[in-house]
Amino acid sequence: MEYSDDLMLEAFQEAQLAIDGGEVPVGAIFFDIESQKIVARGCNSVNATKNATRHAEFNCIDQVLTSTSRWENIVVYVNVEPCIMCASALVDLKVAAVFFGCNNDRFGGCGSVLKVSDLLPSNRTLFKGGFRQLEAVDLLKKFYKGENPNAPIEKRKLARD
Amino acid sequence: MEYSDDLMLEAFQEAQLAIDGGEVPVGAIFFDIESQKIVARGCNSVNATKNATRHAEFNCIDQVLTSTSRWENIVVYVNVEPCIMCASALVDLKVAAVFFGCNNDRFGGCGSVLKVSDLLPSNRTLFKGGFRQLEAVDLLKKFYKGENPNAPIEKRKLARD
Repeated sequence: MEYSDDLMLEAFQEAQLAIDGGEVPVGAIFFDIESQKIVARGCNSVNATKNATRHAEFNCIDQVLTSTSRWENIVVYVNVEPCIMCASALVDLKVAAVFFGCNNDRFGGCGSVLKVSDLLPSNRTLFKGGFRQLEAVDLLKKFYKGENPNAPIEKRKLARD
Repeated sequence: MEYSDDLMLEAFQEAQLAIDGGEVPVGAIFFDIESQKIVARGCNSVNATKNATRHAEFNCIDQVLTSTSRWENIVVYVNVEPCIMCASALVDLKVAAVFFGCNNDRFGGCGSVLKVSDLLPSNRTLFKGGFRQLEAVDLLKKFYKGENPNAPIEKRKLARD
């Protein structure tokens, strides 16, 4: 499965939309390798929806369901390592590959906290991270260090210390 | 957090609806301890929706979002141990408690494959299983041993051997 930096940049654009909207900056692109088209794009919308499960990946999953794409042709680009929930969903759906940026040390399900794909017997998905990771970390820092009213209070306090 | 066997029986009723509809028999009830009302009920709808993420718990989560309930007042009853994805979602949402029936040896996120709640720093949810577990196992066996066209082929073959 070939990585495309152009598609990762599109995911970063989605992440920028998230931060502009007061959300943790995570953006995702779902690319169909059969049609060679982006079939879903989305960002984290946890604060806007008050729903802790509305991660970028889940917002994209909903879009693919209304398309004609088959899950095994989908390659996912996301600037931050998918969490345990999202990694498990992507394995369940049997997407072809997931390319991600920086690690997610608190919630990451692709190696940071645990590697979901090693635990699920049905896994067929390739997970690979480390793409543009410094930029991904910088974007997260921008959110948590800023005076964003949606950032967790303890993080804002730390940013001031 | 007090367990209610009546509510677990309601979850089993949902699981029966699943099996009647050709789905893996998993049913869930979301109970609001503040209003003392059931605010969501649902079953697995993976086959009907062709979406591997439509587990009973996610179908219930969507219903709670249209209610006035607060997640910290929700107690979940489900006949089978939530998978890694669902357990992670329920921790993210900070539901009060999850009572489940039998273990889920292949996908369980509450101790069988791993215990998601021990891994996520934000965990506030009580997970407790083993309620009516023999009945829960029997219901799963009924699905996998039957000639249900939606049961995995290898399981159907095994059932015949």
